Amino acid sequence: MLLPHVRIVLVGTSHPGNIGAAARAMKNMGLTSLHLADPQAPFPSPEASARASGADDVLERASVHRGLGEALAGCGYALGLSARLRSLPWPVVEPREAAVRALQKAQAAPVALVFGREKSGLSNDELARCQALVHIPANPDYSSLNLAMAVQIMTYELRLASRESLPESTAREDFPPATLEDMEHFYNHLESAMVGAGFLNPDNPRHLMRRLRRLYNRAQPDQNELSILRGILSALAPDAWPPRGRESGGPAR
Amino acid sequence: MLLPHVRIVLVGTSHPGNIGAAARAMKNMGLTSLHLADPQAPFPSPEASARASGADDVLERASVHRGLGEALAGCGYALGLSARLRSLPWPVVEPREAAVRALQKAQAAPVALVFGREKSGLSNDELARCQALVHIPANPDYSSLNLAMAVQIMTYELRLASRESLPESTAREDFPPATLEDMEHFYNHLESAMVGAGFLNPDNPRHLMRRLRRLYNRAQPDQNELSILRGILSALAPDAWPPRGRESGGPAR
Repeated sequence: MLLPHVRIVLVGTSHPGNIGAAARAMKNMGLTSLHLADPQAPFPSPEASARASGADDVLERASVHRGLGEALAGCGYALGLSARLRSLPWPVVEPREAAVRALQKAQAAPVALVFGREKSGLSNDELARCQALVHIPANPDYSSLNLAMAVQIMTYELRLASRESLPESTAREDFPPATLEDMEHFYNHLESAMVGAGFLNPDNPRHLMRRLRRLYNRAQPDQNELSILRGILSALAPDAWPPRGRESGGPAR
Repeated sequence: MLLPHVRIVLVGTSHPGNIGAAARAMKNMGLTSLHLADPQAPFPSPEASARASGADDVLERASVHRGLGEALAGCGYALGLSARLRSLPWPVVEPREAAVRALQKAQAAPVALVFGREKSGLSNDELARCQALVHIPANPDYSSLNLAMAVQIMTYELRLASRESLPESTAREDFPPATLEDMEHFYNHLESAMVGAGFLNPDNPRHLMRRLRRLYNRAQPDQNELSILRGILSALAPDAWPPRGRESGGPAR
């Protein structure tokens, strides 16, 4: 697991609540290494601990540094978060690409993600210590994210990148799908019930059965769901099955 | 732009700060429609406004509802955030896929992303109103994200998805999707018919309604299909609607 080799560096943070919220966001995504450079808020602080919720361990192991250089000690690569376009063009990546790159680099040496001050971000000198900048896509009319939110987005992308492959869906299936024959029995049952109730005129079906087939085929009922549907029909229209004038269960239409 | 057609619904929120932080996260990503169902915190509140930072306009236009059903009024599709695995398997997607799907559905009618209570999430009945659940990948040992952080991740994915060109919906749609209110009327009608026929014991429902919800939510009937289903019920069980002991058409369960 490479996530422990990615360091979150917060520079000049003013609000202790943001430090706590960042710790929680990190732990939620499996990161543990928090470094504070020149925090403007007292640290440790009760407010940080309160916002950290169950992530006190991340806070307790956080280290406090004088200056960004000290916080980057031991790292082989740094990415700086920046909301603003800089006068000096610098490589800029989005969070998704930044996460992949950070994990690639973390195979060799620890990597730092550097987050600036709440009001003013990172200075140009601080940005220049980073190999690339990360720009989080945002509403151009209101683009400044809360500090801990930016940490959450980056750590979320790191977690996704740390997985080999994304599963299509995690839905568990508890029953096998209904067979097509069973679906035919159901359609016959349904048609018979509708004819019996006078809802469907067998001489003028007006696409009704086709519409119902499209609906239920889209749903692809499993075997249990299909028995429920059959049970409902039997309860509501006890005389509908087997259909009159046709052999029981025979395929039709 | 489809983002304004995606509604953020917060159910039973306890902490006003989370409402404010969610509003800021929304505006950062270009969303504007905030709906609060049964907020446990006083609203409006100074704490919410403080955390909203410059997103007061989102807070000011937020609407407060009694119950999730009211908050979903007008929507055609709902996704529920859930950290837990549920006793009844329900389709589960990750945020990235959920965002693409939400924007596809938002082309036809407003879409809701539903976030539960800070401590206990969404109830099973609330989840059963959603077509699919969203699971945010997280550290299995510490998986519960702060509410506003979950809103931030989802709105971030929505913004990314809104930049991509959306695949055309594959099915030809000749009728607009049934609204979620109409689906509730149908479920009430179906339940009433099943109770009337002795198929469903109202004192021992055994997940039956939830299973049926899962089935029909998967099918996502259009308005025409839903009228056919209602017509079948009326024909088979003429006494089932309006349900006895309940006002006609009122949302329930």
